[in-house]
Amino acid sequence: MAVARAGKRRNKLDPSLLADDITFLIAKARSMATAMANQRLNRYDLDLRMYSVLSVVKYGDGPSQRELADFLVLDARQVMYVIDALESSGLVERTTDPADRRSNIIRATEKGLDVVEKAELIVRQVEEEYLAVLDPDQVQNLRTLLNRVVNPPSGLDED
Amino acid sequence: MAVARAGKRRNKLDPSLLADDITFLIAKARSMATAMANQRLNRYDLDLRMYSVLSVVKYGDGPSQRELADFLVLDARQVMYVIDALESSGLVERTTDPADRRSNIIRATEKGLDVVEKAELIVRQVEEEYLAVLDPDQVQNLRTLLNRVVNPPSGLDED
Repeated sequence: MAVARAGKRRNKLDPSLLADDITFLIAKARSMATAMANQRLNRYDLDLRMYSVLSVVKYGDGPSQRELADFLVLDARQVMYVIDALESSGLVERTTDPADRRSNIIRATEKGLDVVEKAELIVRQVEEEYLAVLDPDQVQNLRTLLNRVVNPPSGLDED
Repeated sequence: MAVARAGKRRNKLDPSLLADDITFLIAKARSMATAMANQRLNRYDLDLRMYSVLSVVKYGDGPSQRELADFLVLDARQVMYVIDALESSGLVERTTDPADRRSNIIRATEKGLDVVEKAELIVRQVEEEYLAVLDPDQVQNLRTLLNRVVNPPSGLDED
């Protein structure tokens, strides 16, 4: 039977919901950035995760799949799928690590270097857009705090 | 042919790599939190995304799938899969919205409320662990900055 509603609902997922929960805020910030970036990276047949892996491959010196997974805190299978996709688009290639023939290292192709350069501009622009609500000091502050969380200071020699 | 390597590699994905890139730092922070949380939520057959949806369902007042997707900045299909998983575990149920019979609203079951309460403790503990590198002022600062990014101030009436 149709039950009459006592007016509109109390709470239509008010933005204040879970606003104290940093894990939730990080997940939501990431979803926002991903949605914005994916829409625009689409023209290069990339998504934000492919872009991230490609960037790390570019700036790293021939990382292995395991190193990529550890660095990105993703599981090896997720990284393998991304590398498969990048490889079949001709953006990276796997080669045998001369220092350890059981291991592959991943390198960007010329095409990959070209695409990642264009994609960087897009991702940079997306970042500027969603950070436009912060002033430059706040942006720097956010960067510092996130860096501290992601790369906690340790007793290890940094060399 | 086996090429001798000139010493060890220049750069084994040094933590400073991409450390200026806030989009990357957010993605990595989210991956860290997800990896830590998933490992421990496993005992309730939950992952962090299921937990997030279940939390929003709990605190929202019978949101629709569309409202959940908008709120979490996920696409409707992703949210549908998560709700399917939660429903088949008996943690939520879909009911027809009495205000709009074409639409479903999602509500937590008794079991769902019980599980989400236990999961909250786990997620809270994970958060404390990865934020332990920050002092309380920095934690509050991070919360404020992320909130501003995720819920940008708008001209809308907040009531």
